[in-house]
Amino acid sequence: MNDIEIIGFIAAVLATSAFLPQVYKTWITKDVSGLSLPMLFLFFIGIMAWLVYGILKPSLAMIFANGITLMSSFLLIYFKIRYSNK
Amino acid sequence: MNDIEIIGFIAAVLATSAFLPQVYKTWITKDVSGLSLPMLFLFFIGIMAWLVYGILKPSLAMIFANGITLMSSFLLIYFKIRYSNK
Repeated sequence: MNDIEIIGFIAAVLATSAFLPQVYKTWITKDVSGLSLPMLFLFFIGIMAWLVYGILKPSLAMIFANGITLMSSFLLIYFKIRYSNK
Repeated sequence: MNDIEIIGFIAAVLATSAFLPQVYKTWITKDVSGLSLPMLFLFFIGIMAWLVYGILKPSLAMIFANGITLMSSFLLIYFKIRYSNK
């Protein structure tokens, strides 16, 4: 792995670490009132496009980061649908 | 611009569009109770590292996306400090 990819992995760990507590908080509290389903879908499609970009570029750090974020945002969409109107 | 960068720009527009309503909502409501300052800092540093990665790679789409996200997260940090304890 070269120096550029190492910077990418540092970025990936920092930025995705900041996103995971949100997923955890939503899971525990089941409070999805602040989440917007259209926005979550937009974000999900955006992250899918980033993942495709990472594969084509190619960029290991982006594949890693967007793989994790894709799963996280999928979970948020699931929570939003599951816990809405309760 | 080649095809890969076009996918990157689509990703950038989708994923950052999903983030901007959060910034706008915080600005209007001044409700920063749900935001954690350490997490915002972590995210800010992560995005800075992504920006450096985008410059070194080089990736125009990543420079564009992370430039906007860096400004957005800076604003959230400012709001959090400005509107806390009010």
